[in-house]
Amino acid sequence: MIAVYPGSFDPITMGHVDIIHRISVKFKTVHVLVAESTDKVYMFTPEERVSFLEQSLSDLNNIKFHLTSGLTVDFADELKADVIVRGIRAVSDFEYEMVMANMNKNLAPKLETMIIFANPKFNFVSSRLVKEIASHNRDLKGLIPDCVLSAFQKKFAK
Amino acid sequence: MIAVYPGSFDPITMGHVDIIHRISVKFKTVHVLVAESTDKVYMFTPEERVSFLEQSLSDLNNIKFHLTSGLTVDFADELKADVIVRGIRAVSDFEYEMVMANMNKNLAPKLETMIIFANPKFNFVSSRLVKEIASHNRDLKGLIPDCVLSAFQKKFAK
Amino acid sequence: MIAVYPGSFDPITMGHVDIIHRISVKFKTVHVLVAESTDKVYMFTPEERVSFLEQSLSDLNNIKFHLTSGLTVDFADELKADVIVRGIRAVSDFEYEMVMANMNKNLAPKLETMIIFANPKFNFVSSRLVKEIASHNRDLKGLIPDCVLSAFQKKFAK
Amino acid sequence: MIAVYPGSFDPITMGHVDIIHRISVKFKTVHVLVAESTDKVYMFTPEERVSFLEQSLSDLNNIKFHLTSGLTVDFADELKADVIVRGIRAVSDFEYEMVMANMNKNLAPKLETMIIFANPKFNFVSSRLVKEIASHNRDLKGLIPDCVLSAFQKKFAK
Amino acid sequence: MIAVYPGSFDPITMGHVDIIHRISVKFKTVHVLVAESTDKVYMFTPEERVSFLEQSLSDLNNIKFHLTSGLTVDFADELKADVIVRGIRAVSDFEYEMVMANMNKNLAPKLETMIIFANPKFNFVSSRLVKEIASHNRDLKGLIPDCVLSAFQKKFAK
Amino acid sequence: MIAVYPGSFDPITMGHVDIIHRISVKFKTVHVLVAESTDKVYMFTPEERVSFLEQSLSDLNNIKFHLTSGLTVDFADELKADVIVRGIRAVSDFEYEMVMANMNKNLAPKLETMIIFANPKFNFVSSRLVKEIASHNRDLKGLIPDCVLSAFQKKFAK
Repeated sequence: MIAVYPGSFDPITMGHVDIIHRISVKFKTVHVLVAESTDKVYMFTPEERVSFLEQSLSDLNNIKFHLTSGLTVDFADELKADVIVRGIRAVSDFEYEMVMANMNKNLAPKLETMIIFANPKFNFVSSRLVKEIASHNRDLKGLIPDCVLSAFQKKFAK
Repeated sequence: MIAVYPGSFDPITMGHVDIIHRISVKFKTVHVLVAESTDKVYMFTPEERVSFLEQSLSDLNNIKFHLTSGLTVDFADELKADVIVRGIRAVSDFEYEMVMANMNKNLAPKLETMIIFANPKFNFVSSRLVKEIASHNRDLKGLIPDCVLSAFQKKFAK
Repeated sequence: MIAVYPGSFDPITMGHVDIIHRISVKFKTVHVLVAESTDKVYMFTPEERVSFLEQSLSDLNNIKFHLTSGLTVDFADELKADVIVRGIRAVSDFEYEMVMANMNKNLAPKLETMIIFANPKFNFVSSRLVKEIASHNRDLKGLIPDCVLSAFQKKFAK
Repeated sequence: MIAVYPGSFDPITMGHVDIIHRISVKFKTVHVLVAESTDKVYMFTPEERVSFLEQSLSDLNNIKFHLTSGLTVDFADELKADVIVRGIRAVSDFEYEMVMANMNKNLAPKLETMIIFANPKFNFVSSRLVKEIASHNRDLKGLIPDCVLSAFQKKFAK
Repeated sequence: MIAVYPGSFDPITMGHVDIIHRISVKFKTVHVLVAESTDKVYMFTPEERVSFLEQSLSDLNNIKFHLTSGLTVDFADELKADVIVRGIRAVSDFEYEMVMANMNKNLAPKLETMIIFANPKFNFVSSRLVKEIASHNRDLKGLIPDCVLSAFQKKFAK
Repeated sequence: MIAVYPGSFDPITMGHVDIIHRISVKFKTVHVLVAESTDKVYMFTPEERVSFLEQSLSDLNNIKFHLTSGLTVDFADELKADVIVRGIRAVSDFEYEMVMANMNKNLAPKLETMIIFANPKFNFVSSRLVKEIASHNRDLKGLIPDCVLSAFQKKFAK
C-alpha cells in the first residue's frame, strides 16, 4: 500500500517523527506532502521545512518528500496512493479530520483516510506551541529534532 | 498488509458492511474477529452473528471470520496481522478508541491501530439502537442487511 | 405547533420544570411522554412520576401527560405532533441526541427534533445525581420540586 | 410561530437549503438573517449572498431574507420572532451555540433558541470548506446549489 | 501555597471575579498575571486591564497584579509560585488547558497546574463575547464589573 | 491546605500513584478517600484496596487513607479539608467532573474542587481497563504497582 501523509510541518516535531517511523514500517512507500499555501504564514520556508524532515528521517528509505500547494486528493491521485494517513492528538483534532475525510471521500471515492493516534508522550507537542515556547528561548530537547532545535536557537538568539 | 477488524457484531449493520467493503479493497486479508465475551449479554448467538457476517459479505473473498474470547492483540499476533482497524462514528467513540489503541500499543508495540470514519449516512446506525428499534417492530430496511432484517422479524413477530 | 417532550422523569427536576415552562409558552400543546420501559429500573413508579409532573406544573394548562412504552415517533404520530423537543445540558448528551434525532428522522421523516439548552444554573442537576445525593439525606431545595423533596425525605428517612 | 435563522451564508450550501426547507414547513414565517459584519471578510458581497439564497429557495413562500449588521436578538425583536433556529453539524459547533443561546437568553429572556441537527449526508459541508475546495477547481455538485456552482466556476476559472 | 492566575483580562468579567474570590480564600497569595503579548490585539491597554482588575477586586488583600510578556512558567518561578490556577468554562477550553499544563510540566516539573470550574451562571460569559455584545450598546449589568460597564459605555457611546 | 482525593482505587494504578505524589508535595495533608459503595461491584475488597494504596505510597508521610461510604463533601467537612482534588485523563471524564464539582459546590459552598491532569504517559491506564487486560494474563509492569501485579497474578493464575 502507498500512503500520503500531508501536513504543514512548520516545523516537524518528535510527534511527527514518531508517526512517520510507525507508518514507514507498514506501507511500501510514504509520501510526505509538505503544504505550501499562499494563505498561511509560515515560520520556516518550504525548503527549510523539507530539509528538517529529510534530516530528521534520514534513517528511513521508503519516504519521499513533496512540496504541494494543491488538494491532497489530487496529489494522492498522481502518486497512485491508496490512503491518506493522518495522526490525531486530541478530540478537538478529531472532528476536523472527520470532516476532511468525508469531503475527500466525496472528491476521491477510492481513496481512504486512515487515522493513527499520536504517542501519548508527545500529546502536548504541536508545531504551534513549540514555536511559541521556542520564541521565549526555552529548551525543547526531546520534543523536536536537533536540527529544529538549532534553527530555533539561531532564530531567537538574542 | 493484513488487518484484523474486531467487534461484537450483535448484529452487523450496514455501517459495518460499508467499512468492511472499504478495507477489503485495501488490505490483502481482513480477519473479522467476532467477540464472544462471557461478561456480555448478546441478542444473537456467536454462530448467528458469524452467519449474518458471512451472508452480508459473501461478495468479498479476502475476508475471514473468527470467533474470539481473548485479547485482540493476542489473536492479531497469531494471525500475523499488521494492523487493527476500527471504524469511528462519533466523538464519543473516539476517546475509547484512543485509550484502547494506546493500551494495545503497550501490549504489542509492533501492531498499529488505524481508524477509518464511518460513512456519514450510517452515522446514527449502531447495533444497540438497531436492536431497540427492531424490538418495536419498525422497518430498518437500508440500515441492516436483509438476513438481519428477517432475523429481527422472526424474533419480534407478535 | 404541537410538541412532544419525552423523558424518564425519575424524578422531575427543576431543570425539567424550567424547560417545560419555556416550551409551553411557544407551543400550542406540549405532550410530556413519560417512559415506562420494562428494561429500566426506576426509583419511582410511573404513577408517582406522572404525579410529580402534574404537581410541579399545575400552573400550566397546555401540557398533557402520557405514560408510554413504545417508540417516541409512534406516539408523536398518534398525537399529531410536529416536533420532538429535547433539552441538553452537556456535550456528552449532544451526541446521543444527534443519533436519536437522525434515527427518528429516518423512521418519521416529517417529524423534526428540536433541542433547547438547559438553564445554566441547573446544568449539574440530573435525575440520576439527584437520587444519589438524596439517598444520603442531603437537602436539594431549589434543585427539585417540593413534592419530590417530600418523597425523597419519606423514602430515605432513617 | 415565527423563526429567525441567522448566518453568514458565504455561500449557502445544500446543508443550509435542507435545514431551511425543514423549518419552513414548521414555522409560519422564517426570517433568514444574512450577517453583514464589518469585522469579517466575505468571499461574496451581501447582495450576492442574498441572491444565492433567493435563487436556491424560490420554491418556498414563507421565507424572507434580511441583511443585518446588528445583534440577532434585536432584529428578532423587531420581527416579533418567537425563536432563533440554528443548525448544528458537529460537537464543536455545539458549545459555541450553547454559549450564544445562553447569552441571547440573558439579553432577550422571552426569545428561545432551538437547535436542529444537519442532515448527516451534509455533515462535512461547511461554507468555509466548500470555498477552499472550489478554489482548486473541483466539482461540488450536490453539495451547493447550482447558482453557487456557477459563481464559483466564474470566480476560479483560469 | 502561592498561586499564579494568568490571563488576558481584556476585560475582566464577573466569571473572573468569581474565580479570583474563590481562590483568594484558599491560597496565601494569588498573583494575577496580565498578559501583554505583542502578537495580540487588545481592546483595552495593559494599564486599563490592570486598573479594572484592581477596582473589581479591591476587597481582597492577598492578590497582586503583574503585567507579563514572558512565559507563565518563568514568571511563576520568579514569584516562587507552587501552582498555576486556570478556570474552565467548557469542554472546548479543556483540551487547550491539558496541552498547556502538560507543556508547562515539561518546562517546569515542580510547578502544577490546577483547574477550577467556572460558576455555571457565568458559563456563557467570555471576554470576547462581552466585547462583541457591548459594541452593540447592550446592557451587560451583572456579567461584568461596573468599572468595565462604564468603560464600554464611554467607548461605544454614539 | 488540606486536600481529599476520593476514588474507588479498584485497584490503584501508576496514574493514581503519580497524581498522589504530585499533590502530596503541595498540600499539608492529603486524605485519600476509598469508596465503599453497596451499589458497585469491586474486584478487590476495601481492605485490599487500602492495602495496595499503603504499599504503593509508603514513601509519603502526609497521606492518610480512609474507607468511606458517604458523600465526599460530608467526609471532607469532618476532615476540615479545603479542597477536593480530582485527576482527569480525558475529555469524557471532564463533564462528569464538572457536574460533580458544581453539585458539590451547591452542597458545600466553601469547599473547592481542583482538577489536575494525569501524566500523559498514563493516559490510557484506567482501573477498569487494567483489570480487563490482567484477566487475560498479560503483563502490566510499569502501569500498576508491584503489589497489584502480584495480586493479579495470584487471582488469574491458571
